[in-house]
Amino acid sequence: MEFIKVVIWGFGAMGQGMADMLISKKGVNIVGVCDINKNIVNKKLSTVMHTKLENDVLISSDIDEILKSSKPDVVLLCTDSFVKGAFPKIKKIVEQNINVITTAEEMTFPFESHPELSKDMDDLAKKHKVTILGSGINPGFVMDLLVLQLTGAMKDVSHIDVKRVNSLSPFGPAVMEEQGVGDTLDQYHERIKNNNLAGHVGFNQSVHMIFKGLGLKATKFEQQMEPIISNVDRKSKYASAKKGTLAGINMTAQGYLGKDLFLNMDHPQQIEPQLEGVHTGDYIDILGCPDIHMAITPEIDGGIGTIAICVNMIPHVINARAGLKTMIDLPIPRAILGDMRDMIDIDE
Amino acid sequence: MEFIKVVIWGFGAMGQGMADMLISKKGVNIVGVCDINKNIVNKKLSTVMHTKLENDVLISSDIDEILKSSKPDVVLLCTDSFVKGAFPKIKKIVEQNINVITTAEEMTFPFESHPELSKDMDDLAKKHKVTILGSGINPGFVMDLLVLQLTGAMKDVSHIDVKRVNSLSPFGPAVMEEQGVGDTLDQYHERIKNNNLAGHVGFNQSVHMIFKGLGLKATKFEQQMEPIISNVDRKSKYASAKKGTLAGINMTAQGYLGKDLFLNMDHPQQIEPQLEGVHTGDYIDILGCPDIHMAITPEIDGGIGTIAICVNMIPHVINARAGLKTMIDLPIPRAILGDMRDMIDIDE
Repeated sequence: MEFIKVVIWGFGAMGQGMADMLISKKGVNIVGVCDINKNIVNKKLSTVMHTKLENDVLISSDIDEILKSSKPDVVLLCTDSFVKGAFPKIKKIVEQNINVITTAEEMTFPFESHPELSKDMDDLAKKHKVTILGSGINPGFVMDLLVLQLTGAMKDVSHIDVKRVNSLSPFGPAVMEEQGVGDTLDQYHERIKNNNLAGHVGFNQSVHMIFKGLGLKATKFEQQMEPIISNVDRKSKYASAKKGTLAGINMTAQGYLGKDLFLNMDHPQQIEPQLEGVHTGDYIDILGCPDIHMAITPEIDGGIGTIAICVNMIPHVINARAGLKTMIDLPIPRAILGDMRDMIDIDE
Repeated sequence: MEFIKVVIWGFGAMGQGMADMLISKKGVNIVGVCDINKNIVNKKLSTVMHTKLENDVLISSDIDEILKSSKPDVVLLCTDSFVKGAFPKIKKIVEQNINVITTAEEMTFPFESHPELSKDMDDLAKKHKVTILGSGINPGFVMDLLVLQLTGAMKDVSHIDVKRVNSLSPFGPAVMEEQGVGDTLDQYHERIKNNNLAGHVGFNQSVHMIFKGLGLKATKFEQQMEPIISNVDRKSKYASAKKGTLAGINMTAQGYLGKDLFLNMDHPQQIEPQLEGVHTGDYIDILGCPDIHMAITPEIDGGIGTIAICVNMIPHVINARAGLKTMIDLPIPRAILGDMRDMIDIDE
């Protein structure tokens, strides 16, 4: 079987991480990289990655040319967080009869937030006989898929608490800015007023993926954002937060069944949490028959995790039936330590 | 859509548990129950379950008649642990063009232990356009599927440790006997000599499912059994183990990659573990990029868990492509709190 061919669209932290991971995998080649960053356009991938490559490519800003000439099996789309920005790109890829895996958080479960665009994408994918998937660590895995997987061992579920406590310290200037690290409380309130503080994107997706996965319909979905004010001076590689300023943001969300709070989500993100005795981890507590209490400590690394999941889903997306899919429609992701082609179903 | 129709073959602890769970679920009916136990044959299911049933059935020992007259969508086969016993029953079901989900431990991943029978079952299932699946808590979920799922968030894996520490106290006389609870050390050695001590069935399946799932081939698989001698007097509902006798058995297994111990499995099972300070739980520790350390405490209930997983996989098996499948081929199991028919793909 020919090598699996992958194009990466968007060569930021996620795209570069996926390139690095793909280079180390057997049975798969990067056949194109698209980005608008003038510093890397027309440079060789080997040069930008500082590595030898058997099958080198020239980074280009012309996605149409890349797709037509390289005819990949899948595009890893790492450009956007929101459906609004991702949709036209997804449309362009699918219309070339190519599968898409995207890191766009809203694409992990877009059916509630974007019902019409979701229907359009599903119809388009089926018409072109390809698969679209949004994935990542969160949303896409730890606060939703893993929760659902644990309920698989349960006869009944009455309440779910999910908490992801992580450190923002590994992340770069863009994330520090987006999460308000180092802002004063006044600056924080100003940004909230101007709708200029991203916080975590994905609670709508996680909550609705869980409800849908369980066969339920949420009567109400709510989410909140609170500043995490540091009581000590904190400093990470790319930011600092003096005592009294924001170390990060605590995002919370709830999904209701009737009047009952069925699903509770907590996601405090900050630099250097250990300086105030906060231990990072992913915690899932499900009440029902039987109860299940799970902890992953420390938390699953968000950056590496997202890169890994998207690459690890490549064979499942290639094998999948056509349409707009989510992580609950496909087999589990798992690390690919052999030849990726061995995972392709030949007789389907 | 018509109700999903289920036949239960084997009305022991697992079969009864599944019947009880199915009765509480929407969109699915039990249309037949098969067992050879003379005490329940020709009795109404409602009588034996001590419950009112809208669609009552007569328990029968004639599987051929049940399958022909009720034409179910799936049979839950809860009669055997080993492929040798399960195969003729699976063949009988599949030849009637009916899907099978079985609790037979060896069926969760039979390809290494029974390569020829596996090929026969796969060919037969494809010929009859149905799906065969072996499942359960262990093997089938906690010491294998969940391990693989966590590697999905990893770029690379170098070593895996899986440990399931559980209590045998909830289990009945049959399990107490099978696990040697209360035996003296001499009795234990005698039973080992006569190959008369079951221990845990499923390590071969779990180890090979993990290797296959990761795209690897184990160079060597080994498993061992050690007695757990109690240092205190212990008593559970159905057994007792005086100081100096067996409280249970510790099963261990290893999968090698080249000369390296890649995968290590530990499964001590005993009554009343807390009397000697042993806390139950499911522990997964995976080294690689990134490392992942997971704990579920207490352990996922083995009985309820197996019942729940098999029932929760019904829609996925109905939707699946034909053939002999495993948990790594299908979407994740999840609790079914809505109408089961909503999970059936109509347009596939």
